[in-house]
Amino acid sequence: MANSETLDRTFAACSHPIRRGILERLAAGTLSVGQATGDFGVSKPAISRHLRILEEAGAIVRVVDGRTHLLSLPDRDPGLDDAYGWMTRQRAMWERKLDVIEDVLTEQRAAARKEQP
Amino acid sequence: MANSETLDRTFAACSHPIRRGILERLAAGTLSVGQATGDFGVSKPAISRHLRILEEAGAIVRVVDGRTHLLSLPDRDPGLDDAYGWMTRQRAMWERKLDVIEDVLTEQRAAARKEQP
Repeated sequence: MANSETLDRTFAACSHPIRRGILERLAAGTLSVGQATGDFGVSKPAISRHLRILEEAGAIVRVVDGRTHLLSLPDRDPGLDDAYGWMTRQRAMWERKLDVIEDVLTEQRAAARKEQP
Repeated sequence: MANSETLDRTFAACSHPIRRGILERLAAGTLSVGQATGDFGVSKPAISRHLRILEEAGAIVRVVDGRTHLLSLPDRDPGLDDAYGWMTRQRAMWERKLDVIEDVLTEQRAAARKEQP
């Protein structure tokens, strides 16, 4: 069972375009903070806040190398795995429900056709 | 391309255990507000706020039937589809990257073994 707080933090981490943008850039590999966060057109404090939310969710890892801070995605992100799993289960449950509704409607239509003269 | 604001709202909607709980219950079918939101142990205003966030994200639909408010999941939830798609792409990109790293490490190990006497 997925830890609920981990899910909260992962979904919240993904709920802002700048944070998703940082995660997309890092999917290509390790980057400096400047490379990962440049060109978003927001203040440094705003960027720092986004990075803190991503770090607290375990979605990114920061390694300090002298004066350079390097950011990367973790080898394994249990939060992203859990969030993906939750969405997969939710979609599967709902699609099964829709299939059942469709089956019932199909049967009703067939029965209605039989009753027609 | 997924609408960024839709993604923001969908991920934010999923970032609270009560909102995920409501979505899980509704995956089984239409429920009254009382059935969908009972037993969470929070105030009515808090429940109303959660429902508003879910409605604004397009994650639930409310139908008013006299004095009863019925809640259900929409037949199609483009927000959830987009969010799921974003996570799928993000995981695929990162897993490709990890595969490349693993291939490089395997090659380096093989080369190192050859050089050993």
